[in-house]
Amino acid sequence: MTITSSRPQVQNLQTSLIRKLANQAMGREGVIPLWFGEPDVPTPEFIRQTAKTAIDEGQTFYQPNLGIEPLRTAIATYMNGLYQTRFDIDNIVVSVSGMSALSLAMQCVVAEGDSVIVPSPVWPNLPSVAKILGANIISIPLRPVNGRWTLDIDQLFDSVQDNTRAMLINSPNNPTGWMLTDDEQQTILDFCRERDIWLIADEVYSRIVYDRKFAPTFANKITDDDKVIIINSFSKSWAMTGWRLGWLTVPNSLISTLETLVEFNFSCIFAPIQLAGIAALQGGEDFIQISMKRYQVARDRIIEEFAGLPRVTLPEPEAAFYAFFAVDGIDDSFAFAEKILLEVGVGLAPGIAFGSDGEGYLRLCYATDINTLDKALTAMRPLLM
Amino acid sequence: MTITSSRPQVQNLQTSLIRKLANQAMGREGVIPLWFGEPDVPTPEFIRQTAKTAIDEGQTFYQPNLGIEPLRTAIATYMNGLYQTRFDIDNIVVSVSGMSALSLAMQCVVAEGDSVIVPSPVWPNLPSVAKILGANIISIPLRPVNGRWTLDIDQLFDSVQDNTRAMLINSPNNPTGWMLTDDEQQTILDFCRERDIWLIADEVYSRIVYDRKFAPTFANKITDDDKVIIINSFSKSWAMTGWRLGWLTVPNSLISTLETLVEFNFSCIFAPIQLAGIAALQGGEDFIQISMKRYQVARDRIIEEFAGLPRVTLPEPEAAFYAFFAVDGIDDSFAFAEKILLEVGVGLAPGIAFGSDGEGYLRLCYATDINTLDKALTAMRPLLM
Repeated sequence: MTITSSRPQVQNLQTSLIRKLANQAMGREGVIPLWFGEPDVPTPEFIRQTAKTAIDEGQTFYQPNLGIEPLRTAIATYMNGLYQTRFDIDNIVVSVSGMSALSLAMQCVVAEGDSVIVPSPVWPNLPSVAKILGANIISIPLRPVNGRWTLDIDQLFDSVQDNTRAMLINSPNNPTGWMLTDDEQQTILDFCRERDIWLIADEVYSRIVYDRKFAPTFANKITDDDKVIIINSFSKSWAMTGWRLGWLTVPNSLISTLETLVEFNFSCIFAPIQLAGIAALQGGEDFIQISMKRYQVARDRIIEEFAGLPRVTLPEPEAAFYAFFAVDGIDDSFAFAEKILLEVGVGLAPGIAFGSDGEGYLRLCYATDINTLDKALTAMRPLLM
Repeated sequence: MTITSSRPQVQNLQTSLIRKLANQAMGREGVIPLWFGEPDVPTPEFIRQTAKTAIDEGQTFYQPNLGIEPLRTAIATYMNGLYQTRFDIDNIVVSVSGMSALSLAMQCVVAEGDSVIVPSPVWPNLPSVAKILGANIISIPLRPVNGRWTLDIDQLFDSVQDNTRAMLINSPNNPTGWMLTDDEQQTILDFCRERDIWLIADEVYSRIVYDRKFAPTFANKITDDDKVIIINSFSKSWAMTGWRLGWLTVPNSLISTLETLVEFNFSCIFAPIQLAGIAALQGGEDFIQISMKRYQVARDRIIEEFAGLPRVTLPEPEAAFYAFFAVDGIDDSFAFAEKILLEVGVGLAPGIAFGSDGEGYLRLCYATDINTLDKALTAMRPLLM
């Protein structure tokens, strides 16, 4: 007998197309996996050491729902130092990953029948979390204009309907590397204030940016009266993907609601992981700089390679560590990603995995060492010529 | 400006009354905290060592949604050895705690407008998770009969309505220590089969039982065609509360739905924690035996103490590590717990925290060393005489 979920929203959920493709590589030798958004190096030693010390000390008991106070303080201090803001501990909620932070934010904001506006292509989990809660998603397409991804702000605003509860904006964007400018952020914030719309800002790639120290952020534009929740994560900046640690920045008055929601989602987080997060925030700037130099070299190498391939169009990624590129004549990105996997052993994410606005594109994660990247680019070349 | 959640179900959520009371102890010296359900010892050294080794090895990357295969296999092997069952890896989903397992189960099963039947008093998070999803809760009171907690099975069955989607049964029960018998479990399972009702069995106290190796379990009664999800956790059996590791046992055909739901809840779990779980399952039987001897001594000590206090009624806990006792003349358990806290510095959980069926009772967690327990019992004595 086949037993299925009783919830309509859950029955209609689709498995990730990236995972579907990656499953085909199971047991295949020598595949170069550039499909997931993950740095190829383990977490820095000093961060790991902090966790081990806490385990030695026997820090294996329950912790507060909102996160341990030293970590919440360290996060506020980190943000205030970086962004010149004035957050305090009661603006900060620790979560088991950026994904879980996003889920908590949506649980706060979105109810059955609401609509949520999302610039797209976008990491599929963002709209999916809203869909699980019964929301209707309105996608606003990012478009390449003169070699740069852009969002049509007028189209964004025009898409607002009576039942629009929130805008869900991922800038810097996965998969495209697009970023909002500071001026655009201010315009969007002003609009959301006027229309009483929530703004959920996924800023997990805030530090993965090539021409400045941090990407434009809503953090330095909001007040404690704004219906804005900012999502962040330790995964990308400090190569901590596996640790599952993220945070939300929220209006002070929302903190008790989140304390309750955390209780019913995961209750608390392993203390050694939280202490590792403090170590990352306080001692991780060198690692970010070293990583950005690596990503810059990899990005330049890809831009150079694709410039020599007339069929390939790559709007330059301003942030994050993905090349999101189109190939002339390709309109089924899943089939083409499958072909690349099976014929030359390189694992890419099909653009369709990021919504219909991503169709025709492929995503390559270049947070990898340059030799592996070279090998992958060389292997793919015949299929892209 | 006060900013509140936009979701009606979330607006109405209440903070735990245990936490509300515990907050009053903040900064108070010398409080003996017996309000939380947590063993007082750190996780055994061999489990902690396994996690540290994995951190040293650099196991800091993303992991599969459902859990790493060695852990899922170890869980199936552990259950099959203990219960004489035949689960395989595709019946097992790893989660960030029993709480998260419960939340995943509810997301699979419960939709807006459903009703869910819950024997009560019960750990408040169980019904709350169903409520967040829009379900209506029907509580069936556990009652002390001849010094033992009992469930009226006829009343349980009579409460089923057309919209009843699930029974949510926590046996062994927190807070009472009540357990279903094997015969009662079979009767309930047969009924749920006939009426096509989901059975969510929270069995996190399965190993904390005084007269046998494991409590009666639905695991050895179900087939893969049953709409049954069993919740379990590493927290109580192996003193791993802080690690956040649990699992679900599900019908094989539900596994792909859960894989997707995990992706949108927490995505995956830190590999060193999962490897620590394997160590616990494979090497943790001695620790369970030692712990049960400690809990037995503590339980007997409390039974002896309360036998000498005519105002106190303690139905004997058959399992778990809680004394859930009534005090003659007390009908406001929160006020009385507050009085005990403020006057003699002992932290107990008020019965009302476990639903209205718990009013008039107090819960004392005796997973603590005997000297601390003695000190608490002596301190409370004047208020219970």
